Parts: sequence; C-alpha cells; structure tokens
Amino acid sequence: MDENFNRYEPGAVAISGDSILAVGPEAELKKNYAANQTLDCGGKVLMPGLINAHTHVPMTLLRGLADDLRLDVWLLGYMMPVERQFVSPDFVRLGTQVACVELIRSGVTCFADMYYFEEDIARATAEAGMRAICSQTVMKFTTPDADFFEESLASAREFIQRWKGHPLIVPSVAPHAPYTCTEEILRATAALAVEFDVPLHTHLAETALEVENNRNEHGMPVIPYVKKQNIFDAKVLAAHCVHIDEGEIKTLLHHNAGVAHNPSSNLKLASGFAPVTKMLAAGLHVGIGTDGPASNNDLDMFEEMRLAAFLAKATANDPTALPAPTALAMATRLGAHALHLGHLIGSLEAGKRADLILVELDPLHNSPRFHHDPNGPYAQLVYAAKSSDVTDVMVNGRWLMQARTLLTLDESELLAQTQEYARKIDAFLVEREQSVLSKLIAIGGASEAESFEVQSKVRLEDTAPVLAAMEKPDLEILHHRHYHEYDTYFSFDGPNQGYLRYREDEFIDEKGEVSYVRYRLTLIGPARERHFPSDVLLSRSRFIAPATHSLRFYREYFKPSAEHFIEKDRLRWRVLFRGTEFYINLDRVEQPELGTFLEVKSRTWSRRDAENKAELTADLLSLLGVAPEGGETMDYIEIVERQP
Amino acid sequence: MDENFNRYEPGAVAISGDSILAVGPEAELKKNYAANQTLDCGGKVLMPGLINAHTHVPMTLLRGLADDLRLDVWLLGYMMPVERQFVSPDFVRLGTQVACVELIRSGVTCFADMYYFEEDIARATAEAGMRAICSQTVMKFTTPDADFFEESLASAREFIQRWKGHPLIVPSVAPHAPYTCTEEILRATAALAVEFDVPLHTHLAETALEVENNRNEHGMPVIPYVKKQNIFDAKVLAAHCVHIDEGEIKTLLHHNAGVAHNPSSNLKLASGFAPVTKMLAAGLHVGIGTDGPASNNDLDMFEEMRLAAFLAKATANDPTALPAPTALAMATRLGAHALHLGHLIGSLEAGKRADLILVELDPLHNSPRFHHDPNGPYAQLVYAAKSSDVTDVMVNGRWLMQARTLLTLDESELLAQTQEYARKIDAFLVEREQSVLSKLIAIGGASEAESFEVQSKVRLEDTAPVLAAMEKPDLEILHHRHYHEYDTYFSFDGPNQGYLRYREDEFIDEKGEVSYVRYRLTLIGPARERHFPSDVLLSRSRFIAPATHSLRFYREYFKPSAEHFIEKDRLRWRVLFRGTEFYINLDRVEQPELGTFLEVKSRTWSRRDAENKAELTADLLSLLGVAPEGGETMDYIEIVERQP
Repeated sequence: MDENFNRYEPGAVAISGDSILAVGPEAELKKNYAANQTLDCGGKVLMPGLINAHTHVPMTLLRGLADDLRLDVWLLGYMMPVERQFVSPDFVRLGTQVACVELIRSGVTCFADMYYFEEDIARATAEAGMRAICSQTVMKFTTPDADFFEESLASAREFIQRWKGHPLIVPSVAPHAPYTCTEEILRATAALAVEFDVPLHTHLAETALEVENNRNEHGMPVIPYVKKQNIFDAKVLAAHCVHIDEGEIKTLLHHNAGVAHNPSSNLKLASGFAPVTKMLAAGLHVGIGTDGPASNNDLDMFEEMRLAAFLAKATANDPTALPAPTALAMATRLGAHALHLGHLIGSLEAGKRADLILVELDPLHNSPRFHHDPNGPYAQLVYAAKSSDVTDVMVNGRWLMQARTLLTLDESELLAQTQEYARKIDAFLVEREQSVLSKLIAIGGASEAESFEVQSKVRLEDTAPVLAAMEKPDLEILHHRHYHEYDTYFSFDGPNQGYLRYREDEFIDEKGEVSYVRYRLTLIGPARERHFPSDVLLSRSRFIAPATHSLRFYREYFKPSAEHFIEKDRLRWRVLFRGTEFYINLDRVEQPELGTFLEVKSRTWSRRDAENKAELTADLLSLLGVAPEGGETMDYIEIVERQP
Repeated sequence: MDENFNRYEPGAVAISGDSILAVGPEAELKKNYAANQTLDCGGKVLMPGLINAHTHVPMTLLRGLADDLRLDVWLLGYMMPVERQFVSPDFVRLGTQVACVELIRSGVTCFADMYYFEEDIARATAEAGMRAICSQTVMKFTTPDADFFEESLASAREFIQRWKGHPLIVPSVAPHAPYTCTEEILRATAALAVEFDVPLHTHLAETALEVENNRNEHGMPVIPYVKKQNIFDAKVLAAHCVHIDEGEIKTLLHHNAGVAHNPSSNLKLASGFAPVTKMLAAGLHVGIGTDGPASNNDLDMFEEMRLAAFLAKATANDPTALPAPTALAMATRLGAHALHLGHLIGSLEAGKRADLILVELDPLHNSPRFHHDPNGPYAQLVYAAKSSDVTDVMVNGRWLMQARTLLTLDESELLAQTQEYARKIDAFLVEREQSVLSKLIAIGGASEAESFEVQSKVRLEDTAPVLAAMEKPDLEILHHRHYHEYDTYFSFDGPNQGYLRYREDEFIDEKGEVSYVRYRLTLIGPARERHFPSDVLLSRSRFIAPATHSLRFYREYFKPSAEHFIEKDRLRWRVLFRGTEFYINLDRVEQPELGTFLEVKSRTWSRRDAENKAELTADLLSLLGVAPEGGETMDYIEIVERQP
C-alpha cells in the first residue's frame, strides 16, 4: 500500500522491535537479513493494518440500544440520557476493551476515537496493544465527564500533557461539533491542539440541517465558520464532511486537514452522501471510519471499505469510480495521513511501525482467485473478503492475534461484563419508558436540549418602581413584548417526571390586540439546582417542542395524574446590563390570583459565566429597586401546587 | 415473520415431514405434541430461512473476474466472452454447488436463479437439498446454451415439463431483459409461463440508459412496453426495477408482479437507487437479491438486508425509513411472495414448508443484547449480525447444515475444482489480454454487441441495370444516402483477431457537397460463417464504437501488424422488399481500384428468420438483375489482402 502500490508475490517483511526494516521479494530479504524468528504466512495476504479513522469505541456497550429513529429522538431520547446515567471510567474502559476485540478480529490496528473519560480509553487501548488517537470531547452541554466545558478542556490539557509521546497513543482534543460548541470552545481547543502539536478531532458538516443552521446563525457554511475560529491552525481530523462544496474542499486541502468518511453511519442516520470522489480528486486525505457502533452497528472496516466504493460508484453514476485499490488505500495509507500519522503507519515501508495483518483470500466465499488482473487482489479484499478472514494482527511489532486467537484480551470475560451493563441499561429504559420526556420525544422531537439558566423571581406589591427603573441609563432595552399566556400544566406520578406545560402565547400588539398566537409544549425537568447568594437559582432543564396537536390530544397521550391551569399577563424585556443579556418578565398571574412577580433570567453555558451572571442578577434586581431577599425559587406551578 | 410479526420467547416449532405443524410458545407446543426427536436450539434465534430473490448462481465461478469496469466493458469484454468459452453443463453444476455452500452457510434456504443450462442448475440445487426457482434464460443473442432463441425457448419448455411439481425446484422461464429480447421472445416466454402456470423471471428497468433507449425505440417506459407484450399475463418476478415511476409501480401492483431489489449490484454497477420505500408503501411484494456473485461479489443476504435498510434511509432522507423488521420481512415473507411462493415459505406458520435457520445473537460483534425494545432482535439481525452467525439450516424438513457442518456438500472438493476453472479462465484471459476486442473495449466501450447479418456481395460490370431496377414497384425505398468512405484497416498477428476498421464517413448531400463527417471504429470479428444457397452469407460479429481519438492514436494504441487503406464511393438504400427491410449498397472502390460491387444485407436474430431472409436475398438479387452465382463472400479488406 505504498504510493506506487508495490506488491511482492512471494514477498517478505523484515521487522526489528516496533518497526519495519525492509519490505520486498522473499528471496531478496532472505538473502539480506538473518532473523531470530521467521514466520511463514502460508500464502495469505500480508498487508498494513486497517485504520478506523473515526469512531466512539465505548459505544460498543450501546450497540443496538435504539435503531430506526430520527436523530433527535435517538440522541436526546436514548443516547444522551443513557450516557448521562451510565458513562463512567468503568464503562468506557469495558467498552474500549470490547471494541478492541472486535477491531483486532477484523484487522484494525489503529483507530481515531472521540468520547468522554478519554484517558481511561487511552489506558485500555494501550493495554490491549492497539494504536489510537484518543480525543477528549469538549462541548457546551453537560457531558458525562463535565458539567461545564472548562472542566473537559482542563482534563483534555492534562491528558495531552501526560500522554504526549506515548508509543501507541496520540492524545488529542475534540471540540465535538460547531453546533455543540461555542466560538470560545472552538478557539480554545484549537489553541490547545496547536500548543501541544496534537491533532484536533471534530465532526464537521454531517447533516444538511447543520449547514442550514450554521448559515442562518453565522451567515456562512460550516468550513469557513470554523476556519474563522482558527480551527485550521491545528492538525484537523474532520469526521463526515457530507455537506461541503468545492470551495470548502479547497479550504480543507489548503490547511492539510484529514477527512474521515463514514459510509454506514451516513446512510443509517440518513445524513446523506459525502462527495468522496471530489475530495479524493482534489487530493484530500480521506480515510474511512465506522463511526460509533451505536449508529452503524458494528466496527467492521471491511464492510465500510466495500460501502465506500459502492456509494462512490452509485452517486457518481460511474462504476469505475473509487476502484478497489483506492478503497483499500483509504482504509490504510490515506487514513494514516488523515490522522496525521502518515509518516508512521498506513503502509508497509522500511522505517514505519510494524502494524500489519494477515488475511486469507481462499475461503469459499472468496473463491476462485484469478491472476490475470493486477488489481484482482484489491478487488478480492474490498468486494468479497469478510472481516472474519483476518487471521493474524501485529501492532508496533507485537502480535495481538495469531491464528484467530486473541493474545491481549479475554473475550468471554468481557462478554459477561457487557451483558451486565445491558441488564442495567434495560432496567433504566424500561422504567423510563413511561417517562414524559421519552413520550414527548416520541411524538415529534424536542427542538431544544437541556440548558442552564440563571434566574431570580421576586414578588412585587407595586410594579411602578420597576417600570420607572426600566428607564435608567444603565439598562439598554433591546426588545419589548407583551404577552397573554394560558398555561396548562400536566403533572405526573413517579419520581423525577417534572411538569409538561402546554402554553398558548398570545402576542399583544401596541393597539392592545392579539397579533398572533403560538402553541408550545415545554417539559420542565426536575430542578437540578444550585443556589447562589441572593436567592439566585441556577438551572432547570427544559425541552421545548412546538405543540402541533390539540390540548386534548396531549391530555390523552400523556395521561397526566393532575392538571393545573395558570393564566397570566406578561410584559417581557430583553435588555443589556453591563454588557450581558437578560430577560426581565413582569408577570401578573390572574388565574389563580397569585399577584405580581418580577423575573430576571439569563442563559449560560459555563460555570464561570454562571457565577458572574448570578452576581449581575443581584445587582440588576437592586437597580430595579427590588430587595432580592424576597425571592421565590419556585415556578408558578409549584406555588399553585403547594396551595391548600 | 408472519403478517403480525409474532414472536415467542421461549418458542418452539413442531415439524412433521417437510412441513410445519405448529409454531408457538414452547410450553404450549410441548403440551400438544410428542416428538420423535427434539432439538434444543440453545437460545439462538429460530427464524424462516432467507430468500435470495434474484441471482445467477453459477457465476460464483466468475467472482472477482473483473471489477471496477463500465457495464459494457465488464459485460462485452469479460463476462460474455468468458461465458461463451467456458459455460457448460459441468460449469453450471460446479458453480451451483459452490453457490449452495455459500448460500447455506449464510442462512439462505431458497433462491431465484436465472442462467443457462438451467436444468443442470436445478439438478445440482435439488441434490444439495435447497429450494429454488430455476429460470432458463431466453434472449436474442447467442448464449452458451443456444445459438438462436428458438433453441433456448424449446429447452425452457422441456425443462418446465420435466420439473413442474418437484418438491424443491420451481422451473421457470427467463426472457433476459426487454433490451436483449425481441417482442416475439417476450410474448413467447409469457405464453409459455402462462401455459404451465410457472413464474416468469426477468430484468426490468435496471439502468437509466435502458429506460431512455426503450423510450426512444418504443415511445414508452419499460413497464408499459413489456405489459404490451403480455408479460404480465404471467406470474412475474422482476429484478431491479430501479428506474420506474409511480404509474409503473401501480402497473406492477395491479398485475401482482414480484420485485427483487438488488442493493449491492445496483451500487457496484452504478445503476442507481431503486424506489424501494415507494414500492413497499404501494403494497408491492419486494424481496431482496444478491444478483450474481460476479457483480456483488458475494451471496451474503445479511449484507443485502442491511444495505437495503441503509439505502432506503439515505435516499428518503429519513432514518426511520425501511426499519429493521421490514428489511427482514423483505428477505423472508415479502421475498416469498415476490417469488409467488408466499403460500409455501417465507414465515414459520403451520402448514408451510419447514425451511428454517438458527442464528446466534450473542457473539461479541453483536453484543450486548437489549430487551427493552420489542424491535431489538430485528435490529440485531439486520444491523449487526453477520452471515457467519448462522449455525443451522433446514430446508423442506431436512437439515442441510448443523452446528456449521454442511451435510450435503463437500466444500474442499468443490474448492479444488473451482480453482481448476479459474486457472483455465486466467490462461484464456491472459492470452486474450492483447486481443483487439479487449483493447477496443478498454478505451471506450463498444456500443453495439455481436450481431448476425445475412449478406450477399456481387461484383458488377455496369451499375445501370441495378439503378434502373431500383425503380421497380416491388421495392419500397425507405431511405437513400450517398457516402464517401475512407477506411483504414488494422490487421493483427495471432488467430481470431479480426480487423479493426477506422472509418471516415463523409455524407454527401444533394448538391454533391460534404454535409458532415462521422468517425467510427468497427471491430470485424473472425467470420463465423454459415453459407446459405446462392452464396448468401450469415453473420460476422461486429463491435462498433465512436472513434473519438485520432487515427494516429489508434495506430499507436493497437499496434497493428499491417495496415491497409480503402477509399470508396457508396450509394446506400434502405428498402422494404416483401415486407422485410434490406440495405442495398452500390460501392465503387476507388483505392485500390477494385471495381464496383453490389451488397445486399439484412439484420437477423433467429435461425428461422435467417433462412427466410437468405431466400429473400437471392430473390432480391434477381430482381436487381444480378446473377448471385458471382457472389463474393469476402470483405473488401480480404480481397485487398489476397491481392499479390
């Protein structure tokens, strides 16, 4: 798999320590080298190990958890809740070991991973003897290993410092994706990768929706946007790149970014068809990845190679597109370059690491074998070989499998532990199956994931001082609205179900007339609170969905145990206070007659920011002439429910 | 896999003879039935055998022969020449046995085949214990088992008569495809299928080009065209149906036609994306096929199921499209209906044949196993299971494989014989590698395949009598043209190479001026002649391609051993004589000065037609006032080459 696709039949490889000394005709090597140990490969194909250019290995434990679902339902309804509940150092260690069994058995010697607790993944991988790029995820949402992005960024830094220079593991940082990161996160992770000269691993332009949203929010497609955040200062490994144009391909090429193409995942999640033929023609290093086994549902690179070739042909309407030698190059040499490891692995050449595999090409499902066509062996490997035809695997000069026997992992022990996790996850999901969130997601997806809010609520006797204070020069009013809101709250038996609110939002125009009405469904999760001084409250998780059905439908569908109605008049301002955006609500709760309240709220994504905003909130309340000591930490529905 | 997707865990199946007595919960069956023999399936999935709805099983012997080629290059350059040379009763028997090993190992219990010498395929299949629809191919071209379609039609009839009612084999007839059959063949095969009430198996609307050509030639898309030929009077199994619209789907549905979807083949040959979701929504019975192993390159139905689901999702832009239970239904129950065998197989139900398999769902690559989702096992089978997870296979109440041991076939013996064929084919191709045809095909495809022509050539001393005869009322002149032709003939060393002609065709208009010029490359194969009385000659094979490169390029590329130049003036008429079309050429060969010749030609596709046309040719020559006895059977180049 060198640049010239040299083949030797019969050929030989001379290895010393972790590296290849020479590759060439058997007779020549026998003449030039004396070996302590000689292995007869018995007519099998000896080739570089396959490189899985993008995956999330611990998700082996979530394989088959949920399939045939819309991305939001799959992600918000299944993956994220289960990950939040179960993903731990122990979980990722086991998942990595299970993945290593599957990867070694199918001829993979190196993979690029992106997940949580990445240091534990690195440790398990190194113990199994495999090579990997291990990329610690950073994103704006809460993850299993970090409440705020600053924590995961800090652990990424420590992880990289500790593992940089390891013979098998390349530590790396992974800003998850442009839409799950802030600009600050993108810039910070790029700077970290540059500082330590390690790869930056990310998801780019996976779906058409991502590109559309990026255009709406930032006025440009994904690649120029992340370029603006300095991403390409780093050695980028970009997974997916399904929806990019020729200009974006040029940008990736100019910055020597590697691309990981994920055929199965792109099909299964209906992401689309990546322009692989164009990327290759432009000269981009495009490797092949399986993506996580929860969206594939396996780690079989033979399947992915075949599919990469098949899809390129069908989408180019040309059966000569992406021929077998190119598909195999993507899974080896080009993949190595995509991972920025082309100098070390990806082909059998003197000086490179001894990462190699043996593949049988004579089982019946791959017979007969023709010799007239020099491309025949590549076609056999890509179009007819199965992962089970791999018999031996060596990484860094060490055998990890010989004659299909694994030498570094205990498969049956791992299987038992895996099934133990599955039992726990099953129990969790069976219990949750009646949960409001999963039912909400089941009928149409929640458009907004969990978020953090800093908020404070104060009961007012008189609104006049607040209204007067709104004129103060310290407040810049960005937006003002008048609503009349009719809220129906469903509450449920069982712990942690939260409330489901069906809201009819009447927009009142300047003439006092209803200009239009919006219907929304909001799931107000159980509070996961943090109190700051002055009764400032951090966070409630909320999932918002447009209410496209009638109140009656939702009542019958969700079968709430109780139902409450609240009607209120709301004046709402979006203001800028000391450079920070806040929402100020002046609510007159009319039914039941609870009185008038002032609410101050602001969205936040980071712990530091939350602390800062909590302080600002207290100051803002003072400015509005309100004593924060009278604060309510409850939602209106909680006040209503606690009434006798 | 019954209509309601009933599952029993733990379940049991009671079998007597070739059939299923009962299916249900284990406890219930144990209570109601006493068995001579009870088999504990050890927690595996017991399910109906998979049905491969479209394949060409003997092509296992051609697996990997040629890949990554354009369809015409692949078909005309490799498959057809090799088939013509090698396909025999012995070849198809061995190829069928090899395929049966692969099919049984991967959980297939029934397949729908289409090939040549189909009776030998049926015999080998029945001996292996498998169920199949065996469809004898009929087409207008010469096939390995018939020079003319009348022969294959006759053998189809005899085959059906002999095998109708066999417990495992359903004999059937296969008009190959609309573009490889005449209307007469389509009508005759439909009538045959109706007469014996057997399925009619064909390829329909596989490529966009096929549909375009059909529109141009017949003024309508493929499905209405074959409907007009009474195809749908028969029980149709239509392979591919990639390029059909909603109206055509309705037509197929109305006539209860079954469809075989071939995901890998459609991708690998770049045929396109079949509208599977629409076909299923309309209620069509869509099964899944591997197509022949030369264009796949395997017979792995697990791969095809997964791919069917994947492709439907990506093309519908909807990850919920074609969920796992539907994919599995396509490979079982829907496939059985597509084969018109839904009453016998496709699900485990009382009264149906005992065609079933056991599949392990607990190897590591398919772990863990979750239970919270009732669709989980379907997703495991479709998205993560491998064909190697099949352990046991029963067809018609008889075990064909137990604990991965084959009971009816000797795999190692078959492998050796397979390799023997590969050696012979390799030698044939290596020798041919320098052939003009393969080189012609390699650079751009031949647009026209082999054809038969009835022709007669007579030297004239005087053209006046012929020109006068052209006015006779017995001749209807459809078209008249005047050309000036500059032909360069390449000839080659080695047997059977034929001539390659580079022709510059000047079209001369009524004013005697050149209106335009056409450049064509024609490979004139070695004559495979048949003489009819009066020196009428049947047939030369010709491959025609547009000459897009210069004469110099072709000279350097083909490296001919000799080169000759012929310039002539040609008057050409297309005429109707007693209801039959003929071409009449009046050629004045100017360089070298050979004199003037009269040529009479007509295309033919059948032996009977050729005999008829040979007689007509003699009569036409008489009408033109020419004595056929002076006929030349040589091409001009042969006359030139024989000159001293």
